[in-house]
Amino acid sequence: MMSSLDRIRVVLSHPSHPGNIGAAARAMKTMGLSQLYLVNPPPDADGVARARSSNALDVLEGAVVCATLAAALDGTVLAAAMTARARELAPPPKWSREAAPRIVAAAAHGPVALVFGNESAGLSNEEVALCRLPVMIPTNPAYSSLNLGAAVQVMCYELRLAALNPGAPPAPENPPATAEEIRHLYAHLEAAVTQSGFLDPAHPKRLMPRLRRLFDRIDLERDEVSLLRGMLKTFMKPDGKTGS
Amino acid sequence: MMSSLDRIRVVLSHPSHPGNIGAAARAMKTMGLSQLYLVNPPPDADGVARARSSNALDVLEGAVVCATLAAALDGTVLAAAMTARARELAPPPKWSREAAPRIVAAAAHGPVALVFGNESAGLSNEEVALCRLPVMIPTNPAYSSLNLGAAVQVMCYELRLAALNPGAPPAPENPPATAEEIRHLYAHLEAAVTQSGFLDPAHPKRLMPRLRRLFDRIDLERDEVSLLRGMLKTFMKPDGKTGS
Repeated sequence: MMSSLDRIRVVLSHPSHPGNIGAAARAMKTMGLSQLYLVNPPPDADGVARARSSNALDVLEGAVVCATLAAALDGTVLAAAMTARARELAPPPKWSREAAPRIVAAAAHGPVALVFGNESAGLSNEEVALCRLPVMIPTNPAYSSLNLGAAVQVMCYELRLAALNPGAPPAPENPPATAEEIRHLYAHLEAAVTQSGFLDPAHPKRLMPRLRRLFDRIDLERDEVSLLRGMLKTFMKPDGKTGS
Repeated sequence: MMSSLDRIRVVLSHPSHPGNIGAAARAMKTMGLSQLYLVNPPPDADGVARARSSNALDVLEGAVVCATLAAALDGTVLAAAMTARARELAPPPKWSREAAPRIVAAAAHGPVALVFGNESAGLSNEEVALCRLPVMIPTNPAYSSLNLGAAVQVMCYELRLAALNPGAPPAPENPPATAEEIRHLYAHLEAAVTQSGFLDPAHPKRLMPRLRRLFDRIDLERDEVSLLRGMLKTFMKPDGKTGS
């Protein structure tokens, strides 16, 4: 199935360090992106990009190398420029979280580019001008030095969340307890603390409401109610024999 | 101004690569976090961590080195475990985006830990059991190999957005229990079920992990830990006299 993530290309313009290119490939692949474009990349003489890409070699080896940013943007219906600051003549920047759904929505119509500049200099004003959507990742104003691979990771993460609602995280499939089961548990608990002397029926204070407030927060599963009641049973038997 | 981000410690447990420690320090600082804890880190013989930290040397040099994860969690009111998969006996994991506001809210009350495991092995089940909140970053199911520094970057980004979002949910009024208080509660509980015969030390099965999984979901308050321990005390006294 072709997803919108497959139509979003990550463009690294004039990157300096092969290691960052590898890290970007890996970051992309962890989030399900695969289209890498490199504008005037450095040679990877020592295989550093390959090493840092971990097992995302397919992304790295499939990268499209271009001589100019304009060439890397060919065919795109939207180009977003990652920038660390607002540029005077560009449209006002959007925050990464706000931009991601817009980028994903555009990808429904055709290829979209997300453009990252050189590690030290960022994108030039001319490069930003080739893009329609300036995007900023919010950072510590006192230290905004995001690593290039890290910036790619954050944006690809935002795009993945915008593209795919991940739904609930996988959890063991345990049936929840019903209202009656919970009521019976509380009755059992009350009997146990009464027998133990912790609850004085003549002066109950707020003991049971406090215990309910505590257990109510758990979203108890059926098996857990059985577990707790089994435990209470043993507490109620001074001879220490196990219950049920 | 002391912000909630200053009370969130990033704990790297048994990291293998100094470069990743440096990258984590840099990632933290870009998002305004500063408290780095290292459990059994490798020596940085070649200065690789320093180099990769860029100008976040202050974070790196201020790192607290601990021998055990339990020591790194001392004093925390919430510990979140970063994990790549659901663990059978841990509470159900939350996605990173859902967990971040909860972590920030807890940090209003005291130190909070965000725990990352070893690059290859991740966190052990024992380490996850020391934490109450398992957290997953959604990734490509076919390639979930997030770099450690990249994972730290994504989570710190989420925490920054959650911390600066004025709409964060109001935190509860009652002080939460600390990691030590919770540990002592579990020890007390284990003693009680052993005495009652519910737990057979010769065949413990998975009783204590199941009980921890259940109580871990509560976000127990300090007063509630006292309440539960008072109750356990009475269960452990067959004569029924009240405890405390």
